[in-house]
Amino acid sequence: MSNVIKPRSGTAFKMKKGERLKVTDPLGEQVADLYCFNEHDIKEFLSSGRSLDYNESLTFKSGSKLYSNQSNVMMEIIEDLVEEHDFLLTPCSVDTFTHFYPHEDPVPGCHGNLVNALAKYDIPEHLIGTTFNTFMHVGVSPDGKLKVLPPKSKAGDYIIFEATMDLIVGLTACSAGESNNFKYKPINYEILQ
Amino acid sequence: MSNVIKPRSGTAFKMKKGERLKVTDPLGEQVADLYCFNEHDIKEFLSSGRSLDYNESLTFKSGSKLYSNQSNVMMEIIEDLVEEHDFLLTPCSVDTFTHFYPHEDPVPGCHGNLVNALAKYDIPEHLIGTTFNTFMHVGVSPDGKLKVLPPKSKAGDYIIFEATMDLIVGLTACSAGESNNFKYKPINYEILQ
Repeated sequence: MSNVIKPRSGTAFKMKKGERLKVTDPLGEQVADLYCFNEHDIKEFLSSGRSLDYNESLTFKSGSKLYSNQSNVMMEIIEDLVEEHDFLLTPCSVDTFTHFYPHEDPVPGCHGNLVNALAKYDIPEHLIGTTFNTFMHVGVSPDGKLKVLPPKSKAGDYIIFEATMDLIVGLTACSAGESNNFKYKPINYEILQ
Repeated sequence: MSNVIKPRSGTAFKMKKGERLKVTDPLGEQVADLYCFNEHDIKEFLSSGRSLDYNESLTFKSGSKLYSNQSNVMMEIIEDLVEEHDFLLTPCSVDTFTHFYPHEDPVPGCHGNLVNALAKYDIPEHLIGTTFNTFMHVGVSPDGKLKVLPPKSKAGDYIIFEATMDLIVGLTACSAGESNNFKYKPINYEILQ
């Protein structure tokens, strides 16, 4: 059954080892920030730095593995219609909104939405780090400059992650205009048994 | 007074706001992994993801700021003779050594050395994330592949960081052959008042 994450919001849920998470961009050009914890030990969590290191790549696609801070594989990408995601940047927060969008009223952002959604599993805020930013398109120029670009995802595009341990997962529909081409849209997800 | 971090080891110390840390590569082609915490609240710590986001760059040099997970500036780079550092990769650990150097006996790596050095300040292991890898040279190819290359630092080259809050700092002399061109060397540092 497909679940809907409303625009500019987030959710959290558990996945058992072997279950698959399908994340769909129903309308196109939307981003979903993903973070996860070992269900049995929240001191083990998703690590951008370990994942970039073991994959030896900034790019993630089918076959790529997402590692924990303890060097264990947490998720593997099984299928991916987009092949453009970001694993460099932390999710937007009230502070990043104030920095990047000084003329807008700040919103909780994906960071705040993850904090709120993961609170039911007693996850403290400071353990929420750099998310896997599904469908987020960050261009890297030859001099190392980063630029947030519109996602490449089209309506109906999806990615499927397989859990390789029991997980607590946080997932959002992006709140930051620059990341989703200023079209705040929902994200759909479902757990495939 | 200059202090020496012996090859393949690490240390930890406090810095007050306004103090400057000079890190010198005395022999050339060596890397020093740096991590830091707010002295008064260890739930606030260095964040690669926030720093990449606010600097809008993979490259760091004089004028770049290193941010915490709470979006506060922890350090600013005041002077930098090398201008090639890495802020993508987590420090090597027993697990990464086993992965990348399967024919060598694994060593604690910079991660293990930081864990040991920071224990005197009651920093738990899981709070040590992606370090600022001073002088580390990671090439990014147009397709996003990452390659660890010999550091560009020559004998005597240095970088100076200014603390913009009271800090607990961990600092190492790199243990991973690929990062330092298989020449395990010391790192020198001093606090400039």
